[in-house]
Amino acid sequence: MTGALLKSSLWHTEYLNPFIVFQHGITEILLSKKTRFQDMFIVRTGAYGKALILDGKLQVAVEDEFFYHEPLVHVPAVLHGGPRSVLVLGGGDGCTIREVLKWNSVETVLLVDIDEEVVRACEEFLPELHQGAFHDSKLKMFFEDGLTFIDNCHQKFDLIISDLTDPLEDGPSFFLFTEEFFGKVKTLLNPGGIFVTQAASVSLPEEPLHPRIVKTLSKVYASVDSIQSFIGSYGSPIGFAMASDKPLETDLTRRRIEEILFSHVKRDSLKLIDGRSFQGFVGTPLILRRAIEMETITYSQQRVPKAFGGQHVDHAA
Amino acid sequence: MTGALLKSSLWHTEYLNPFIVFQHGITEILLSKKTRFQDMFIVRTGAYGKALILDGKLQVAVEDEFFYHEPLVHVPAVLHGGPRSVLVLGGGDGCTIREVLKWNSVETVLLVDIDEEVVRACEEFLPELHQGAFHDSKLKMFFEDGLTFIDNCHQKFDLIISDLTDPLEDGPSFFLFTEEFFGKVKTLLNPGGIFVTQAASVSLPEEPLHPRIVKTLSKVYASVDSIQSFIGSYGSPIGFAMASDKPLETDLTRRRIEEILFSHVKRDSLKLIDGRSFQGFVGTPLILRRAIEMETITYSQQRVPKAFGGQHVDHAA
Amino acid sequence: MTGALLKSSLWHTEYLNPFIVFQHGITEILLSKKTRFQDMFIVRTGAYGKALILDGKLQVAVEDEFFYHEPLVHVPAVLHGGPRSVLVLGGGDGCTIREVLKWNSVETVLLVDIDEEVVRACEEFLPELHQGAFHDSKLKMFFEDGLTFIDNCHQKFDLIISDLTDPLEDGPSFFLFTEEFFGKVKTLLNPGGIFVTQAASVSLPEEPLHPRIVKTLSKVYASVDSIQSFIGSYGSPIGFAMASDKPLETDLTRRRIEEILFSHVKRDSLKLIDGRSFQGFVGTPLILRRAIEMETITYSQQRVPKAFGGQHVDHAA
Amino acid sequence: MTGALLKSSLWHTEYLNPFIVFQHGITEILLSKKTRFQDMFIVRTGAYGKALILDGKLQVAVEDEFFYHEPLVHVPAVLHGGPRSVLVLGGGDGCTIREVLKWNSVETVLLVDIDEEVVRACEEFLPELHQGAFHDSKLKMFFEDGLTFIDNCHQKFDLIISDLTDPLEDGPSFFLFTEEFFGKVKTLLNPGGIFVTQAASVSLPEEPLHPRIVKTLSKVYASVDSIQSFIGSYGSPIGFAMASDKPLETDLTRRRIEEILFSHVKRDSLKLIDGRSFQGFVGTPLILRRAIEMETITYSQQRVPKAFGGQHVDHAA
Repeated sequence: MTGALLKSSLWHTEYLNPFIVFQHGITEILLSKKTRFQDMFIVRTGAYGKALILDGKLQVAVEDEFFYHEPLVHVPAVLHGGPRSVLVLGGGDGCTIREVLKWNSVETVLLVDIDEEVVRACEEFLPELHQGAFHDSKLKMFFEDGLTFIDNCHQKFDLIISDLTDPLEDGPSFFLFTEEFFGKVKTLLNPGGIFVTQAASVSLPEEPLHPRIVKTLSKVYASVDSIQSFIGSYGSPIGFAMASDKPLETDLTRRRIEEILFSHVKRDSLKLIDGRSFQGFVGTPLILRRAIEMETITYSQQRVPKAFGGQHVDHAA
Repeated sequence: MTGALLKSSLWHTEYLNPFIVFQHGITEILLSKKTRFQDMFIVRTGAYGKALILDGKLQVAVEDEFFYHEPLVHVPAVLHGGPRSVLVLGGGDGCTIREVLKWNSVETVLLVDIDEEVVRACEEFLPELHQGAFHDSKLKMFFEDGLTFIDNCHQKFDLIISDLTDPLEDGPSFFLFTEEFFGKVKTLLNPGGIFVTQAASVSLPEEPLHPRIVKTLSKVYASVDSIQSFIGSYGSPIGFAMASDKPLETDLTRRRIEEILFSHVKRDSLKLIDGRSFQGFVGTPLILRRAIEMETITYSQQRVPKAFGGQHVDHAA
Repeated sequence: MTGALLKSSLWHTEYLNPFIVFQHGITEILLSKKTRFQDMFIVRTGAYGKALILDGKLQVAVEDEFFYHEPLVHVPAVLHGGPRSVLVLGGGDGCTIREVLKWNSVETVLLVDIDEEVVRACEEFLPELHQGAFHDSKLKMFFEDGLTFIDNCHQKFDLIISDLTDPLEDGPSFFLFTEEFFGKVKTLLNPGGIFVTQAASVSLPEEPLHPRIVKTLSKVYASVDSIQSFIGSYGSPIGFAMASDKPLETDLTRRRIEEILFSHVKRDSLKLIDGRSFQGFVGTPLILRRAIEMETITYSQQRVPKAFGGQHVDHAA
Repeated sequence: MTGALLKSSLWHTEYLNPFIVFQHGITEILLSKKTRFQDMFIVRTGAYGKALILDGKLQVAVEDEFFYHEPLVHVPAVLHGGPRSVLVLGGGDGCTIREVLKWNSVETVLLVDIDEEVVRACEEFLPELHQGAFHDSKLKMFFEDGLTFIDNCHQKFDLIISDLTDPLEDGPSFFLFTEEFFGKVKTLLNPGGIFVTQAASVSLPEEPLHPRIVKTLSKVYASVDSIQSFIGSYGSPIGFAMASDKPLETDLTRRRIEEILFSHVKRDSLKLIDGRSFQGFVGTPLILRRAIEMETITYSQQRVPKAFGGQHVDHAA
């Protein structure tokens, strides 16, 4: 018989699928609020420090957020070579813009988040995340629906980063994972520009959603690719999907990666990424690449993704 | 308010640390037995199929075991170039020897597991794992303590793979993670031989154990390195530590990796590994490599690892 | 911050309602079997000893089963005064007949259980429950559907005890809580005979089902009453509903109760019941009696009870 | 295979013992605060409405608090016959004084709670509990340690009610369950006065603590008795221990109980108690009365109670 000494009486529970439960012991509640769009908690977890929870799903935790944000930003930025203009959809916690602003090539960053209350709460309660990025002179913030913003935007960008919550049926990010939306995004890319989006869990039982998002991108873009990173506080690896009309060449030597990366980013400003670990993030397992190849379902206005329990599972098909 | 439809009433619970709980819904119990050494369950999980549980810790699940066994075997085998003789300590489920036997260079494999009852149960209830490997003519099995075996063995090996259960204080693998043991293993390696060992979870809160195991190896071997793989059914990534007296060169191009690998292993016999994903498994995050560098504690007979709840945590220091 | 030392890695989980979870740490699996009718586990719980689980619901645990079976049998038996013939529907674990056979007035007991495999498993693995009752010469066992048995039975009884599993939609007991069935049972009662049935949880959030069962009985019988007992291993109190065409007089002095009870039952054969605690079991809280009075919904072939997660909740209305 | 639809992602967890877990799905956090003495949460539970949680233990929930407070107050008050002066130790949520003030015999009530922050939070966030009782002209409140208050008090009382948190080692109520304290309380009772105290869970695995508290009282008082009530939101029944130097006669007819009770309390002001259910609350199961009789351990300054996980378990002996 075995067991363990647990040190909390309050557990945030993620239902990864109907047979997998992942729980965080909570030690303190810093904020509990229903915004206009979402249920928001800011809590202190015992294992990963302070964390933001939206609609029952842990979004970001202070102690391991860089496992999400470093690859999300720096992998496509390296593939681009030196982005100057960047659009971030979502990302209201400020981590993504913080990483973007580490690139000395960047001249302008736009952040578009539907939920100003979340951004303001993160600004106040989670300074470890944004680290002042909200007040950078290169940043402009827009509090509106990503879809509306895209429809009305006349600027173009080298890098567009979609850092949205999961496509929950009741959540605000639902329509931003469809072929129609991906097509609109494409019109805002400069030549050689890259679009990257958070694209659901890629642990085995959650697999369908990620391949379908990638496949949906491939209906719109000439090149697509999939990278992934394990996020400890999620209990599962997350996939990011990249898309561009230029080839996405990930087969780079460690040396070449570092040449590009460290000509624009200070070496000691990163916790995870150098040449070796960059190869790790783009070293997508064969089984996942095969699953993407074999996938036939894509998402559109007619067929929107279905989610499970605040998590990315499209079990329907 | 959120929630989910759960589909089980029986939950196997892994206590990853005092603030993290990971649960599998169980749909069937195939075997429940106390062996001479361990509590053993063979169950059907809803998410990852049939699984072996020893002393309250899920060891291996049919649906994702290759995320563990492919990198454990094929990464060091590629670094070696063409192992002919292989010793496997533990690995009673038969997966490790199954992967070893995919190398056409291999002439002899020895499997040493302390617990014959576990091996026999896996043979009967989990044929998806061993796939007949137990009856391969190149295999010899020994049911005895790894320590005793090592002390009495006069053979030498190109590859020694330690696929043991975690160093639980009450479990049988306790002393096989010490400097003394690692030193004895070294005496059984051929020139250019490589030792690789399962080396605990490497998600953030579990970090101490892995760096200490690697650092302990570095007291005995000229070269050590750390690779990792996310195991969905564990809810965390696992580290493998490699050690040798020859340099362990992981900075290989995708092409070079495939030249070595596929000159010995049939391409379609692998689910995960090709050149690209090999780079993924060896693409150890910078933060983990730094933690290993900074680590000062090593394990010896005087200071054995402490575990948490059937899991790898040495919180003591 | 608080927490606790848990001593199990395998948890049987009862979903009492969508917001209440009650879990037993399991220390051993004695039997895991799908019978023709039900999923059956016999396990050892850490808190309440060996237990029988059917279709995900703990039915009976060795260490506290008398909190269920003593009031179920002895309260109606005392109200009757000296039952000679007793019919038990369900109760395949043998506890109910064990209590019935403590009455020296009893001449004949019939046990009707649909699932012989459950009875045989209890006989073998749970002798602490039946204590040999299955082999009493006064007992006759029938393995068939209670409904079929009732339809074909020409005997009459002083006491009919319905000790069925909850009315789960997928379970075998579904139709045995309807007005039609209760009417058929009535035809098998001797004058002055009493029918008693397990009648669902009576903790607040589970309230609807119990009042409806009682109210359904009142459409068929002149007198109905409700008693209750807290079952530790259920985490909730269970209601029993009694019905008869003679008045059910529970307002008895402690002395009068003991006169009746101990003229038929050996005093030291009971763990719970004497005059004082008998008053406890019939001391139904006012709020529950009021809820029964106010209840307007009854169950029939047209409107069968709906259950929640292996538990008694009819949230639908 | 079974399961359930859960409707929350945040679970308050009570560890009833090392093998029993009871969880409430939380739908809203109203307050999260560390007071000078305790960790305090005021939350909305999905099953029992708003609730107060102190040091990881649910104290009181709006939807079923009367199962605790009605028997705690009205049973000893009926046994007394018509209390005029009442002292309440603890009970900072205001429910106990609310019930006390229903007795028209009562002229003065003193409330002594160590933690003014808890009282103020309950006053603001939980008006359903106190229902204005804090502002009754008969009430005087003292925010100090019960022990200090008792030492300095020169008044005497007909009824002293100890409504404290469990004797957790880290909590503030630790020394108020000892022989020494019970002796001091006795000096403040009028002739014929009664002391009643919350006295831990009385479900089987938690049994030791309750019998020891009762037995400790019996070293100081001529008469002691034990009553109990199932609290749905605790998942277990709670025992109350009464003590006096006059006989505590609980063997009363329903009629006699109602004569006393309803000559002082308005009939429709109670949710649970009338003559019949009063007999229920005093109908302590035989097995518990026997356990109390057999108990030999008592608590003193030298041997204070040990608790489990925010719960009442003295497993030590």
